[in-house]
Amino acid sequence: MKNYKPKNRLVAQAYIDGVLDGDRVLLSRAITIIESNLDSDKILAKEIVQSILPSSGKSIRIGITGVPGVGKSTFIEAFGLYLVKQGHKVAILSIDPSSQRTKGSILGDKTRMEELANLEEAYIRPSSSGDTLGGVANKTGETMLLCEAAGYDVILIETVGVGQSETAVHGMTDFFLLLMLSGAGDELQGIKKGIMEMADMLVINKADGDNITNSKIAKRQYQNALHIFPLSESGWSPVVSTASSTNNIGISNVWDEVSKYKTLVEANGYFVKNRNHQQIKWMYNNINEELKQMFYGSKRITSELAQLEKDIVSSEISPVKAALQIIEKFKNSF
Amino acid sequence: MKNYKPKNRLVAQAYIDGVLDGDRVLLSRAITIIESNLDSDKILAKEIVQSILPSSGKSIRIGITGVPGVGKSTFIEAFGLYLVKQGHKVAILSIDPSSQRTKGSILGDKTRMEELANLEEAYIRPSSSGDTLGGVANKTGETMLLCEAAGYDVILIETVGVGQSETAVHGMTDFFLLLMLSGAGDELQGIKKGIMEMADMLVINKADGDNITNSKIAKRQYQNALHIFPLSESGWSPVVSTASSTNNIGISNVWDEVSKYKTLVEANGYFVKNRNHQQIKWMYNNINEELKQMFYGSKRITSELAQLEKDIVSSEISPVKAALQIIEKFKNSF
Repeated sequence: MKNYKPKNRLVAQAYIDGVLDGDRVLLSRAITIIESNLDSDKILAKEIVQSILPSSGKSIRIGITGVPGVGKSTFIEAFGLYLVKQGHKVAILSIDPSSQRTKGSILGDKTRMEELANLEEAYIRPSSSGDTLGGVANKTGETMLLCEAAGYDVILIETVGVGQSETAVHGMTDFFLLLMLSGAGDELQGIKKGIMEMADMLVINKADGDNITNSKIAKRQYQNALHIFPLSESGWSPVVSTASSTNNIGISNVWDEVSKYKTLVEANGYFVKNRNHQQIKWMYNNINEELKQMFYGSKRITSELAQLEKDIVSSEISPVKAALQIIEKFKNSF
Repeated sequence: MKNYKPKNRLVAQAYIDGVLDGDRVLLSRAITIIESNLDSDKILAKEIVQSILPSSGKSIRIGITGVPGVGKSTFIEAFGLYLVKQGHKVAILSIDPSSQRTKGSILGDKTRMEELANLEEAYIRPSSSGDTLGGVANKTGETMLLCEAAGYDVILIETVGVGQSETAVHGMTDFFLLLMLSGAGDELQGIKKGIMEMADMLVINKADGDNITNSKIAKRQYQNALHIFPLSESGWSPVVSTASSTNNIGISNVWDEVSKYKTLVEANGYFVKNRNHQQIKWMYNNINEELKQMFYGSKRITSELAQLEKDIVSSEISPVKAALQIIEKFKNSF
């Protein structure tokens, strides 16, 4: 990335004005700058984000996850089309640290949401590339702010149901949606522990054909299970529903639940409280990653850590002593 | 703590020999040194822990949690007495960052486990005090190693069902036990999200008298709920049982399940793998805490962070920019 020279960059104000005007071409070009790893682009990106900041935030941010095969693209296409019909402007972003720009494992191929991609009121942006989840999350987070400033009032952020990316998406959205399949247990093993407890809504997708009965059984099982979960701070009790994205059944219901949720948390103050908390946490996540980078970014440190790991496993050094020892070395290196 | 001078400390070897001999008095004094915040004691503690390290580890480590009122002390007393009768030596430790040495909110008052406390084969140690959870966890972790070196082959580490302490206990034990009460939902709200998914076994306590029927219903509900949880890496499916600690019913069953678990994870290699992983993670947790301490320990930084938090909430600065800005200042301070 660092080897090519960006052609014809505009001045920051041009991107800012374009984004605020809802100009899709300039929005896309501004996002490209956010995703760029060039130092000159980083300065430009910071200026753009800083300027559009007061115009961001006026949206509902919905996180969507589920294991591969659950029908995420089909669901998002159906859900996005429904929202556009209701008069919304929808931006669809994704967090996927494993994706390459060229591959775009989930959304890179816009043909998977062909109908939605052709609408003026929908904006689909494939996952940005990046070495670290933190870096990718920053880019997606800032892209979200830009989309909001450009007038998109529903932001869908999807992620694959593996790794730490759900936590990142959960940390930047207002409502967290988990797509599942019926089939009692087995397929669940692809979902990481703790994800289910983050969900505000569980949608059993592909509830069609021979699958309808099983989906209803699954719905009841999940309802019973969620019932015994600790109550969320939002005061919202997670709901379970079934949907058939291909037949467009159960899609409007998802939006109804999101709307109910929004009414509740706006009334009880959780909406603003949670957003403020997320923004502040975003800063701290960045700080902590930078601190770690200062330490773990050193080759001398990492090779020493590898040796310490071995010594710990063979009981030659205690974990506490090992930590103190390497931190001392680090401090003395300044 | 830093103001008093420890009287008559012995040389390290005296504690080491005493611990390895299973001498309870010297074990207690060695633990006091581990818990001490005096610099001279810290050096002594490191020497002791380092020396007994190869003799540690020969135990099953059981984490026990549950909200206040669930009957933890009574359960641990009944469970401990059962284990001693089976020929085990049992050490009972706790992690409770909120406790003061003098208060010892859970275990400080040994009279709550009167019968057990009088047995030679049981060793009860109240929670150590400390400013940070990391600090307390270090002390409890090293106390555990000492107890193992002194011949205790079952370690029970309890924690209250609030805060981050469960994660700390889960991170240093082989088997995680969650005590609950029947009553469908309400009382669960005291349990933090994610705790239930960490449990290897769920025991519905106080299943006696009028409560028997409700406990059986709760057992079935939890069994159904756990069924849909993602499978743990250990290959173990969490079990649910009922118990009446006061009537000594269902206590031996808990040990049977722990034993089954141990047989399974020793055979499939998870026992050793998990222990190694925990030890290494223990080092990294300490490193990361030290790194944070270097940064957040500075008064100048914390007052600036308070201002940045305000600026973020009022959209005057983006979280990413705020983080970069303060990290730059930190780097330039060296």
